[in-house]
Order: sequence, then C-alpha cells, then structure tokens
Amino acid sequence: MTNIVVKIDSSSLSTPEKIEQIAKRIVEEKKLGRNVIAVVPSMELIDDMFLQQAYLLSDKPSKRELHVLDSINAQIASSLLAIAVQKNGFKAISLTGWQAGIQTVESNNNVLIDNINQKFIFERIKKGEIVIIAGSQGIDKKNDILTLGDGGPETIAVAIGAAIQAQRIEIYTNQDGIYTADPNIVKEARKLKQISYDEMLELANLGSQIIHPRAVELAKRYKMPLIVRSSTENAKGTMIKGEVDMEKNLVVRGVAYEADIIRLTVGYDSYEYSSLATIFSTLAQHNIDVDIIVQAVIDGVKPTVSFSIAKGDFAEAIKVLEKNKAALGFSFADFEVGLAKVSIVGSGMVSNPGVAARMFDRLRKENILVKMVSTSEIKVSVVVPQDEMVKAANALHDEFNLVEELVN
Amino acid sequence: MTNIVVKIDSSSLSTPEKIEQIAKRIVEEKKLGRNVIAVVPSMELIDDMFLQQAYLLSDKPSKRELHVLDSINAQIASSLLAIAVQKNGFKAISLTGWQAGIQTVESNNNVLIDNINQKFIFERIKKGEIVIIAGSQGIDKKNDILTLGDGGPETIAVAIGAAIQAQRIEIYTNQDGIYTADPNIVKEARKLKQISYDEMLELANLGSQIIHPRAVELAKRYKMPLIVRSSTENAKGTMIKGEVDMEKNLVVRGVAYEADIIRLTVGYDSYEYSSLATIFSTLAQHNIDVDIIVQAVIDGVKPTVSFSIAKGDFAEAIKVLEKNKAALGFSFADFEVGLAKVSIVGSGMVSNPGVAARMFDRLRKENILVKMVSTSEIKVSVVVPQDEMVKAANALHDEFNLVEELVN
Repeated sequence: MTNIVVKIDSSSLSTPEKIEQIAKRIVEEKKLGRNVIAVVPSMELIDDMFLQQAYLLSDKPSKRELHVLDSINAQIASSLLAIAVQKNGFKAISLTGWQAGIQTVESNNNVLIDNINQKFIFERIKKGEIVIIAGSQGIDKKNDILTLGDGGPETIAVAIGAAIQAQRIEIYTNQDGIYTADPNIVKEARKLKQISYDEMLELANLGSQIIHPRAVELAKRYKMPLIVRSSTENAKGTMIKGEVDMEKNLVVRGVAYEADIIRLTVGYDSYEYSSLATIFSTLAQHNIDVDIIVQAVIDGVKPTVSFSIAKGDFAEAIKVLEKNKAALGFSFADFEVGLAKVSIVGSGMVSNPGVAARMFDRLRKENILVKMVSTSEIKVSVVVPQDEMVKAANALHDEFNLVEELVN
Repeated sequence: MTNIVVKIDSSSLSTPEKIEQIAKRIVEEKKLGRNVIAVVPSMELIDDMFLQQAYLLSDKPSKRELHVLDSINAQIASSLLAIAVQKNGFKAISLTGWQAGIQTVESNNNVLIDNINQKFIFERIKKGEIVIIAGSQGIDKKNDILTLGDGGPETIAVAIGAAIQAQRIEIYTNQDGIYTADPNIVKEARKLKQISYDEMLELANLGSQIIHPRAVELAKRYKMPLIVRSSTENAKGTMIKGEVDMEKNLVVRGVAYEADIIRLTVGYDSYEYSSLATIFSTLAQHNIDVDIIVQAVIDGVKPTVSFSIAKGDFAEAIKVLEKNKAALGFSFADFEVGLAKVSIVGSGMVSNPGVAARMFDRLRKENILVKMVSTSEIKVSVVVPQDEMVKAANALHDEFNLVEELVN
C-alpha cells in the first residue's frame, strides 16, 4: 500500500472547526486506500502559554525543561486531530516524538534529527490506523525530549517520508503552492507547477515563509518529492523535486523580496587594521545574522566593509560594534535604514551569464537605485530602497517573462 | 544516600507563588543530603482544558486519546516545578511516566501499575538531580500512554518508593495529618501520630479525601511507611504503617462521615423471584457503586433488599432498575434521600465485641435514628438522617474518648 506523509499547517489547527476540516481532508486521502501519516505543528489555540508560565517562575529556566514544555503543544494538537479523524469513523492515533521513534541530537544549540526508527510507525499503520505525529520533537540518547525549533514539523515530515519510503510528502499551507513572486505584491504572479530543490532553497532563504530550508535540504538529500498545496482547497500545488521538467526553460523561476533590511558600514584607516574574519565572527557570537557583505576601498587605501542585517538585529549589532570597537580596529561606522532586498532565482542562470546585467539594466530603467548586490549560482539579490521594493519586484517579474509561466 | 519520595498536592500547584513555595520545601529536603523524588498530580492552573477541547471535537473521543490528553497536565506541572527548583540553585529534571520507567496495564477499565524500572530514576539521582515525576501516567506494552485515574499520583509515589527502596514516602496535603475526625465538623478532633494501614484504608474509603485507598493498599503490601503532612507548614504529620505503637490503646481511632447517601429498597413477592446476585451484578455493570446492603423480610415471606448509593448515581440507578424490572423480578422499589453515613474505625475493635453496641446505645441516647448498619473487622458504619450527621460524629468522637488521643 502507498504511504503518504502530510504536514499540517498551524492555521488548520487554530479552531475546532478548522481541525474538523483538516481531519476530513486526511480522511479523503485514507479513503483512496493510502496509509496516511500526518505531522502536526504547534497549534495557535494554545500557543506558548506553558513557556510563559515557565518564565513566571524563573528568568532562566533550564533548556531541558523548555524543550519539555515546548513539546507539549504539538502533542495536544496531535491528540485532538486524532480525535477529529476518529469522528469520521476512521481509526487514528496520536504519537509523541519518542512513540514515533524519532531520535534527535543536539549540536551547537541546534537540534537535529539523528535517526527515525521506522518500526514504530509501521507497527501502527499495519493496523490500518491513521498516524498523527506531534511534529518538532524527538528524544536523545538519554531519553530527554528535544524540540527541533523552526521548520521542525516539515523536517520531521521529510525524515519520516524517507524512513518509511513514502510515495510523497505533502506540505499543507495557507497558500495553494509556490508562486513566481508573492501574489500580494506582484499581481501577475503565477503558481509554479514545479520547482527544483535548489531554487526552492534560495526562495525559502529569501523570505518565502511556506517551507523551511532545512526541510528542503533534507528532501534534496533523500530525493523525496515534496508537494506544497493548500490545506483548504483541493487544488494541485507545486511539486518540489530534483530536476524540473523543461517544457518551458525559463532562466528565472521566481522573484522574492524581504523588507526591513539595514545596511551597516564600518571603515578602517588602513588595511592592516581591517579583518573580515574578526568582525563577522564577533557578530556571529552574538547571534547576529549577516546577509550580504560588500567590501570597498575609499581613497585608494581606506577599506570599508558593508553588510546587511535584519531590522530586529539592529540594536544588538550597534551595541556589539560599540563595545568591541577597539578590538575590531575600525575608525568609523554608519548605517542606512529603510532598505529591502529583491532577488531573482532560477537554475537556468548558471548557463546564462547575462542575467544579472539584464536585471541591473531593468532596475536602472525604472530609476531604482541598487545599494548592494549579491550573487550565487542560481540567484541574484539587490538591496534597494524599501519604497521601491514592490516596483522592483513587479518590474523583474515582467522582465523575465514569469507571467507566461505555464500553470497546471 | 537516603532516598525519599514526596507526593505533591494539587493545591500546591495552583499558582506560580505556590509552586515557588513547594519548590523551596523540596529544596530543604535536598539540603539535608537526601535524594528527593517528587511526584506531581495535575495542576489546577490548567485543569481539564484539553479534555474540554476533545469533547468539542467529538462526543466519543477514543479512550487512548483521552489518556494522552489527561497525561499532559501533570507533565506540564512536573516541568514547571523542576524550573522552580532550579531557580533555587539545585539541579532538577522533570520525567514523564515513560521516562521514569513506569509500566502500566489496563484491566477491566482500570489502569494499574505493572512494574517500575528503577534504573531510569537511579540514573538521574546518581547525577545529583532532584527528579520530578509527572504522576498518574505510565505506558503499556504497546508504548501507549495510560493514566491511572483517581489516586494515581499517591499510588505512583508508593510504587516508586518500593522500587527504589525509599526510606519513606511523604504525602503532602492541605491538612497537617490524619485526624480522629474531620476538624471542620468535630471541634474536638485531634491529629493522630500514627495509624495502621488497615485503619487508614477504612477511613479513606469512608470519605477522607487525603489519600486514596489504592495507595494505602500498595504501601501495605510493600510495607512502605507513609507520612501524611502539611505542604505548607513544617509540622510533623501522621505516620501510616503496619503496627501502631500501643502507647494508648484506643479501641476506636477515628470517626468518618459521608454526606449525600441515598437508600434504595426493592421488594419481592416471594423468595423465588429474589436474587441478590442478579440485582447487584446488574448495577455493577452500569458502574453504580453500592455501599451498604441490608436484607430484610416483611410479613414473614416477602423479602426486601435495601442498599445505599451516592447521590450522583441515583438517576442512573433508578433508570437501570426500571429498565430491568422484569428480569430482576422485584415487585416494588422505593427510596429515601437526605441520609448520611457515619463510621467509627479502629484496629482495636477486633477484640472488643461491645463496640457496635456502645455506638448504637450512644446514638439512641442522642435520639439519632439508625437507618442501616454495616460492620467490618475494624469498622462500624451507620446510615442516619443527614441533619443528624454532625451531631452523630461529635457524639461518637466523645463516646470513644478520641479527644484524649495523644498528639506528638
């Protein structure tokens, strides 16, 4: 029998009515004769009330107990969803991370999936039960509960899919698929039929909130096809897989954007004082995420380095720079707020060297000032004034003919 | 090192401030150099909100999922208490039932403790950690979570105490010990220094809410001494153990009462129709708890049987009797409401045949009508009008000199 893994979105768990709806959706899959394994995230109904109680008791609760409290929300969600499925006359059971055989391991403050003992899930599906797994948790070698943090449920869905050799993994979301751009700002945005893992990784990192990059990375490693689709409508979604069918070999596959970017610049009196390694390792130690980095030289000898950070990290970044000014050796620092990042993504770029130039040309024609540039094999990002973000995204969407992308 | 097991009362978990207080209490025990294992019940802070959500989704959620949802409250409580203990600078960890090695088994709709794998708890206390266990849950052979229901936390505390050979088990409660009668209705009630398992069993079954009989039974089987004491004051409590020291060999050790009793009577036209077995097995099938049973004969040949039930079972009992009238063969049924049960308990009764007579005599002197009587080796219970309950309890407390019981 076919096994399919379905990752539920948290908005489908926000009210009892929505839980009933998503239960019916799961039942539809079961009626088609498939073994269904659903992975649920934390539910908005409960949110982080237990963590709040923890912080009432201590401003420094142990990490171990925070993992315990954090794991509970999805455990409740899985049980409630199991009950809603049963209501439809089907057998369903909830499983916690350890009951589902999910082994996790902590490494550098990140919790990773170490192994999935597929025996536990197979035992349950053999009995015809719809299995509903509390996503985002597992246990370590000491039997301690660890939660995976951001992207945990998708990542567990992929790991389980790989472990039980699922035919496919469906990622339910409040959108009906992956679009060439955000339909909220680019009116002409079209749904993509397919997208490659690498393209999706670039899009995910660029602010598309649908699926966490770690899940896409894992799917890529195990060659597990992912389908991103609506949790409420029964429409075909977008398939994420290794090689995209080349019916229409578009160079650029999508446009992404990210608002609230801040550019910081530090300048040195001479090269001997400047050390990229020192400044960025200092920022990293304080968990400040640096995105684009640009190095320049003023007056022939005075080097500067500019980098972009998210608005939320700004205050901390300024504090770190001030505190470590002497050690970092820079002579001045300034910043620019009100910026945004706009990116084009597409596997076809690798063999199309003119793509970046075409992008800059179009932006120049639109009178949009490019403040910073960053490129990868399959992506070009520019930092522009935030006021111009929407205009830039629409112009690039038009420039690369994404309007014509064939939809299924 | 000495191991002690402490069962926390749910009123100690009702606010963050109370959790802090009880955490300090646990820390005091640890400071004395003991390994402390705390067992927590569900907390009032959360109550049964998850179960309520389950019933929003289905009027018949599966038992399995109800166990899952029911188990979560104490899991949260254990984690929050661990955090509060850490705040005092001590290492503490929460354990769920399965993490604590608690194996449970379901039998006739009751969940029982099958086995405790003490290795799991020993591993943790070896590291100097204060272990806080989510009481009332374990797992069965299929790795499914089962909750123990009423008295679960005390019973788990006793089972763990036996498994790790604890020096003693302390039952924290909102009273400071076991009294000769309920101090709320008998002003002269005194705290007992000691009480035997058997006496406590009779008192527990008779409506004393401090400790569940199943925990006392288990303690008796494993000869584990229990100390019932206040969760807020550091006063000596009452020791429950096998043999009570005979400093003052009182025949009666305590007076208990239970309000809201209803007497049901069914009458048969002749003996050939009457079957005690049939009527009480029918009631038992519908989970109606029958307490005192009295058989009498009217007019020489027409047998009647009266029995007492709790008010909460009344409607269901009437329904069952009506529905099965033909099968049960009785010709009439009546009932009497507004009754209460008052009992005297004491191991000394076994060798004092006149105790019941002395009890009836005193009640007659007080003009209290006795409606039903039931006796055991160490207990005599009478059913009286509820209006007379307090008077009866006080009179019996006086009659058997419980006022003079020595207190520590």
